[in-house]
Amino acid sequence: MADAATALFTRHLKYDPADPKWPDRDRFVLSAGHGSMLVYALLYLTGYEKPTLDDIKNFRQLHSPCAGHPENFELPGVECTTGPLGQGLAMGVGMAIAERHLNAVYGDDLVDHRTFVIAGDGCLMEGINHEAVGIAGNLRLGRLIVLWDDNKITIDGSTDLSRNEDVVARHAACGWHTVECDGMDAGKVAQAIEKAIADPRPSLIRCKTIIGYGAPNKQGTHSVHGAALGKDEVEAARKELGLEPKEFTVPDDVRKAWLAEGQRCATDRAEWYRRLESSGKKDEFLARVQGNVPSDWLKPHVDALVANAPKVATRKASEMALEAINAATPWTIGGSADLTPSNNTLTKGLQSLTAENYSGRYLHYGIREFGMGAAMNGMALHGGVVPYGGTFLVFADYARPAVRLAALQGARVIFVFTHDSIGLGEDGPTHQPVEHLASLRSIPNLNVYRPADAVETAESWASALEHEGPSVLALSRQNLRAVRSEAADDNLSHRGAYVLRKAGGKRKAILIATGSEVELALDVAERLEGEGVGADVVSMPCWERFEAQDQSYRDSVLPPAGPEQILRVSIEAGSTFGWDRYTMVNGLRLGIDRFGASGKAEDLFNYFGLTPEAIAPKIMEALQS
Amino acid sequence: MADAATALFTRHLKYDPADPKWPDRDRFVLSAGHGSMLVYALLYLTGYEKPTLDDIKNFRQLHSPCAGHPENFELPGVECTTGPLGQGLAMGVGMAIAERHLNAVYGDDLVDHRTFVIAGDGCLMEGINHEAVGIAGNLRLGRLIVLWDDNKITIDGSTDLSRNEDVVARHAACGWHTVECDGMDAGKVAQAIEKAIADPRPSLIRCKTIIGYGAPNKQGTHSVHGAALGKDEVEAARKELGLEPKEFTVPDDVRKAWLAEGQRCATDRAEWYRRLESSGKKDEFLARVQGNVPSDWLKPHVDALVANAPKVATRKASEMALEAINAATPWTIGGSADLTPSNNTLTKGLQSLTAENYSGRYLHYGIREFGMGAAMNGMALHGGVVPYGGTFLVFADYARPAVRLAALQGARVIFVFTHDSIGLGEDGPTHQPVEHLASLRSIPNLNVYRPADAVETAESWASALEHEGPSVLALSRQNLRAVRSEAADDNLSHRGAYVLRKAGGKRKAILIATGSEVELALDVAERLEGEGVGADVVSMPCWERFEAQDQSYRDSVLPPAGPEQILRVSIEAGSTFGWDRYTMVNGLRLGIDRFGASGKAEDLFNYFGLTPEAIAPKIMEALQS
Repeated sequence: MADAATALFTRHLKYDPADPKWPDRDRFVLSAGHGSMLVYALLYLTGYEKPTLDDIKNFRQLHSPCAGHPENFELPGVECTTGPLGQGLAMGVGMAIAERHLNAVYGDDLVDHRTFVIAGDGCLMEGINHEAVGIAGNLRLGRLIVLWDDNKITIDGSTDLSRNEDVVARHAACGWHTVECDGMDAGKVAQAIEKAIADPRPSLIRCKTIIGYGAPNKQGTHSVHGAALGKDEVEAARKELGLEPKEFTVPDDVRKAWLAEGQRCATDRAEWYRRLESSGKKDEFLARVQGNVPSDWLKPHVDALVANAPKVATRKASEMALEAINAATPWTIGGSADLTPSNNTLTKGLQSLTAENYSGRYLHYGIREFGMGAAMNGMALHGGVVPYGGTFLVFADYARPAVRLAALQGARVIFVFTHDSIGLGEDGPTHQPVEHLASLRSIPNLNVYRPADAVETAESWASALEHEGPSVLALSRQNLRAVRSEAADDNLSHRGAYVLRKAGGKRKAILIATGSEVELALDVAERLEGEGVGADVVSMPCWERFEAQDQSYRDSVLPPAGPEQILRVSIEAGSTFGWDRYTMVNGLRLGIDRFGASGKAEDLFNYFGLTPEAIAPKIMEALQS
Repeated sequence: MADAATALFTRHLKYDPADPKWPDRDRFVLSAGHGSMLVYALLYLTGYEKPTLDDIKNFRQLHSPCAGHPENFELPGVECTTGPLGQGLAMGVGMAIAERHLNAVYGDDLVDHRTFVIAGDGCLMEGINHEAVGIAGNLRLGRLIVLWDDNKITIDGSTDLSRNEDVVARHAACGWHTVECDGMDAGKVAQAIEKAIADPRPSLIRCKTIIGYGAPNKQGTHSVHGAALGKDEVEAARKELGLEPKEFTVPDDVRKAWLAEGQRCATDRAEWYRRLESSGKKDEFLARVQGNVPSDWLKPHVDALVANAPKVATRKASEMALEAINAATPWTIGGSADLTPSNNTLTKGLQSLTAENYSGRYLHYGIREFGMGAAMNGMALHGGVVPYGGTFLVFADYARPAVRLAALQGARVIFVFTHDSIGLGEDGPTHQPVEHLASLRSIPNLNVYRPADAVETAESWASALEHEGPSVLALSRQNLRAVRSEAADDNLSHRGAYVLRKAGGKRKAILIATGSEVELALDVAERLEGEGVGADVVSMPCWERFEAQDQSYRDSVLPPAGPEQILRVSIEAGSTFGWDRYTMVNGLRLGIDRFGASGKAEDLFNYFGLTPEAIAPKIMEALQS
């Protein structure tokens, strides 16, 4: 795809290596991330500060920014991290959504750019491609242009081994514009890009190519896919191209010509900044691009909740928090993978973001959890918007690769995962998350919140909006009573865990619970104290935030083992996997280490032994043994 | 879809309620599993032993087999568990693959049936649909017939909110036959099914329907999607249909007519059993359908490994085990999501299973991890084949919803997940699993094996083939030295964990390691003993198998805390999440609690402190504190 990328970077792409974060630049995504060297070469040749030639010589070695796959946190010219196939293109969809939305808000003067994606067969075969193509087609994202590297080779061999699809026809069936060209003729590619730009629909450009083109003995075979060419073949290729044989040398005239190309949009950029200056919106626009969401909505909201103590499901409490947030800032863009009335993600006055109304702030993603997750990543990385989107917690699995990539990229995306336990009831084990809290907590740089009531839900939202990375809000379907009856100066949920209730008498147990089981823990503590056993209740809405506190705070909540034996008990309606960390081996871990069942929520909590009547005797027994 | 299902169950579907497991029955999958009541009604009306009318009255209540979504482990007439959208259809693809393969092996006399699927808009919007449609199209699975309930409604409202796709054209683009009909006219549906049966391609039948048809005041709206009709509307619907108003009553003539339909294929079934008797293959065929894979390959294979002590990657060791397994039984069907040369899943002599050669035993699934996982579930549930398939461990996330559904359904599927740590090297953090072992271990009924050398890999394969549920083999890219130098009578990996090396002097530490870190633990133990600290090394290839052992065995490997202080140390090149269970709180958990990096494997192990030089001093320090 070197010729296609050359056409793009020398004729169409709007960018300036001197200012990689220019807000109105075109976005370029190499969705086929295994071709990372192509991006590194382009950034180097066009004059970006990084990578240097030495970085490139250290390609794929420890501490080189030229990693095995392109990483946005290593190189400013890389818009997103790619490699997990299909996700780059789907993030491109999110970037194109963010662009159209901001264009609707700020007009052509400030926001008027395109998203270009290079995708391979893998990107187009992955299921997420269907979701991304569907979203883009329905939203008529004409600013999105995908160049498909149609080289007919995958790792197993010919694409015929696994695919008989007419790829172009499939895109046309989803409302895309399509065009075909010789991908190894830069002029032809440029003509195709012009057609794509002229068409109001998202475009697929089929670039017919030969894999490894220019490597005379290996091109056209899958041996150039994953392995280095080797010294001999590199020499042969350089000879074929009329270059001197020494590696890592660029002829002076070529170097100069490329650097000149890198200057192509310098004037455009200067003019853009002049327009920004004179727009009267400079501060607002730049603040928005930087993305620090206001938090002044929190205190009045919590004060009102403390006063009213509503007994609501935390999904409903989340909607109440969102009413305040969405009113306080225009930056949020909500949505759901077709569970809007269940996820409570739509607030009053939010219009749908559609092909006819890009200024809307609510996306109907369709039944496309993974596509939603990746699109939100793209929106967050584009900047200027803060996306949140909902599905059931159990279907976090469908979106999981995007959750991981959000964490790796540090993308501020908020996943609203409702129906967070057997408490959802009759839908049964296919819909009841059990292992999901544990499996999400195991992802680095992801904050997983499971608030216990409306106050904690609001605090968790505030904490999530601050986190430079993704957050999960795990929310109940069923109503929960208010457990926080006092206003706190501190955002206690942002602390991760805190003592909600102090033992009445001599403390013999600490009950640690999250979400819907906090009220259960309070009831257990009451019952224990009736039998003369003092018990703290610790509410722990977010493990990751708790781990981020200093030792003295953590010790104040969970005191280190001393001479007096204090039994630690975790209570969570999900897998006990991982809870040993807080209960210690001799503690009790109460949860559900099997799949759930269909039934009324109350019957299920009974059946799985998560009631005060079932738990208190277990604790008494453990204390006596 | 009641009319469409009526057409199917009364005119086309080959089944016999008296023998729900008749091997040559047609398979019926309600991929839109939220319509579960339709299946329960069909099973009841046609005369299956279960569900009873009382079961149906307890719809969605605890202990009723009529769960919120259809569950194969509750009702013999339910072929697979559905509800997580898209997966039922994709399992149908797997069933159709198994059918064609067994037909190629046993001929039309014994294997000659179809797979029918009812799918909703959700099933067709999910990304996995693209993968499933692609696999079925490429394999030209003419025995697969999908009835699409085209009712134009999703939970958020009209499908226009999220989709502008020409669904029929997309299927045509993937090599499918398509036909349209009025889905509420059983005669028209039957004609469409006849066309589908006559066509050699997989078929999509677009059934145009009105959601909730027959409920006069609510039909055509999304209020009939997730909520019960309510008493008044049920009465109104019964009136509209000319039925008496009382719930749960079926007119006698209707009851009799349906029961007669349930007898429609009784003669076919009797003839089939006669053919089986006279085929000379009865024992072989029935044993195969029951699915107990031979294990006699293991001992000679392990004996040879012990003698040769090969230093190989466990992915290579897996290939060596598969050579023995695939030679010992014709039941296995291998494959890979386009990583065949990396996953080492293809053994000598295995032909590709293609549209031209269904007798092949190797599937090129394409870059479709989720589609592969679901297809394998369908194959396993069909019976007669034991599927295994490969991708990288990090991309387990892409297939995760199918892994979970395999575990819930008890489907014997083996996931070969290679490149199981930072040891894969230069591909970097997008390709390096960190949290994946923890997140897979948190799934109930899934065995996760991470063998340390070729012997453990063979043992893990044998153990996985026995498990009535799915297994994951997490395998290294890099070479590992042989750690098992003696033949054991027992399959030690099937025990989950065992003492690989006993402390030389007085035992002060127990090092617990898995996979590639077992050789590291051995080196650490050597170094510790040089400093006078005795250390056991416990190899723990499978947590789940270890937990299944009796207490005395577990105590023999990890002795309970006694007066002498023994430090427990876990070593695994991944997240330490969950390891507290075995190290206890005062132990050491050595691993990687962040994302990885690009670089040579050796550099990375160094960088992350997973070397004897880095670990031994940490243990000395912990022992002294």
